[in-house]
Amino acid sequence: MRLIADNIHILNPVVSKAVDTNDPGPITELARRYAAWGAEAIDVNPGPKSVSRLQTMDFCVRAVRAGTDLPVVLDSNDPELLQQGLQASPGRAIINGFSLEPGKVDTILPLAVEHGLPIVGFLLHPNGHVPKGVDERLQLASELVSVSTQAGLDTSQLIIDPVLAPLGWDDGTKQAQSVLACIGMLPQLLGTNIQTMIGLSNLISGTTHPAAPHLEALYLARLAEAGLSYALLNMHRRQALGCARFCSIIDNGKVFSWAEFAPYFESINQESAGSSSGSQQV
Amino acid sequence: MRLIADNIHILNPVVSKAVDTNDPGPITELARRYAAWGAEAIDVNPGPKSVSRLQTMDFCVRAVRAGTDLPVVLDSNDPELLQQGLQASPGRAIINGFSLEPGKVDTILPLAVEHGLPIVGFLLHPNGHVPKGVDERLQLASELVSVSTQAGLDTSQLIIDPVLAPLGWDDGTKQAQSVLACIGMLPQLLGTNIQTMIGLSNLISGTTHPAAPHLEALYLARLAEAGLSYALLNMHRRQALGCARFCSIIDNGKVFSWAEFAPYFESINQESAGSSSGSQQV
Repeated sequence: MRLIADNIHILNPVVSKAVDTNDPGPITELARRYAAWGAEAIDVNPGPKSVSRLQTMDFCVRAVRAGTDLPVVLDSNDPELLQQGLQASPGRAIINGFSLEPGKVDTILPLAVEHGLPIVGFLLHPNGHVPKGVDERLQLASELVSVSTQAGLDTSQLIIDPVLAPLGWDDGTKQAQSVLACIGMLPQLLGTNIQTMIGLSNLISGTTHPAAPHLEALYLARLAEAGLSYALLNMHRRQALGCARFCSIIDNGKVFSWAEFAPYFESINQESAGSSSGSQQV
Repeated sequence: MRLIADNIHILNPVVSKAVDTNDPGPITELARRYAAWGAEAIDVNPGPKSVSRLQTMDFCVRAVRAGTDLPVVLDSNDPELLQQGLQASPGRAIINGFSLEPGKVDTILPLAVEHGLPIVGFLLHPNGHVPKGVDERLQLASELVSVSTQAGLDTSQLIIDPVLAPLGWDDGTKQAQSVLACIGMLPQLLGTNIQTMIGLSNLISGTTHPAAPHLEALYLARLAEAGLSYALLNMHRRQALGCARFCSIIDNGKVFSWAEFAPYFESINQESAGSSSGSQQV
């Protein structure tokens, strides 16, 4: 399971200030830090509504690349913005992403084919609705593979995101169950070269409950066991990061030391006793 | 995933005092509490060396049964002790357990056949050694099924324990990886009616590191995802219990509420700031 930092987001105050003041340094420093903390790709989300969004994408991607040579995950559903990002990080990018919505299949998917890059495909209905259960998700996954293959994409370049819903939704726990089942079944259904991704923050979106970062980490452990390829997550959530580190050590049979885990789990309560559940961006 | 309380153990001061003073009340109260906390069976371990071990088994089993009608897990490798426990809890017991050590196959396995009760089979070599990897574990599992069937046991009564090793062992993380793989593969290899059990406390045995209960809970989440049937665990480890509750809600698609999780994860640090990792028995 590889980690993708979700923190270079225009809603992150460090990022928006860096953009406003035209100072890439803080973004570069964050990217460098997340690479040191174990991220294997950096997501860049310049936001959809900015008038100067093309410059913002370009600025953020270049700022990240100044700090690390990890791939940049271009997080937008705007083909123009994605093209800007591809220019700023030629050959070192993941397109995030497309779904079966007709406009996206026609405009975003071809970018991946043209540039020979991986692309995230979301399991959403053509009308944008989140699927209800595992059967709908597996059906949508088959259709995503079908349209991708038709467009000329190698299946190994497709990263399927089953779309995690917040636990607080009426059917949140059924959705969480369905996502785990989907991750586990996709390789049998579509071949073992199918990759998967989850936007983990969705699970506890909208809550500051002290238990939230713990449940997020526990769910991440189940995703790892189910065979998840990529977890897109907030690199400042120490429990989730500790979980990812623990899973990596187990899955690779590395030598274990308790001391390594002290930073992730010591004095957790001092943090959760504050107003935040650790959900702030930095 | 069902929980089995491992706390009615002669090394638990509450239990040893109850035995010494011939007062079953505290054991009965513990059993009642663990049932309320979600345990679906209560393990009773009277210890191997006590002169009065037969009375101790009888006393503890009856004390547990006074508090709950959950099955009692008779934890001993002494056939005489197991028989004593079977008399004290007729028809409501799980035998824990046997392995391929010749003496155990000949003396313990027949008890399960005779009484028509489930029995735990440990994946240990005939010489008592812990297997090295998943291949050895799967081979031992096949042999356990073979000797069980020969002895007349219905396979659905066999609960396989792949034997978890402490993370602190030289090959602790490889063992932890192998156990997860084994749990995931056994149903494909031996049929979906094969049940599995893990003695979870082994994972963090011998440490008081503050991260230990967190890693234990994360590992339990992976076991749940791998399809574990029974987790034998310390019911006073709040993180592990919170994990089990979370997994149960996800796996059964139950309605979620944050408030339910406050007792498991709030003020965790006040606990871990003490000298203990929560590993005390009560």
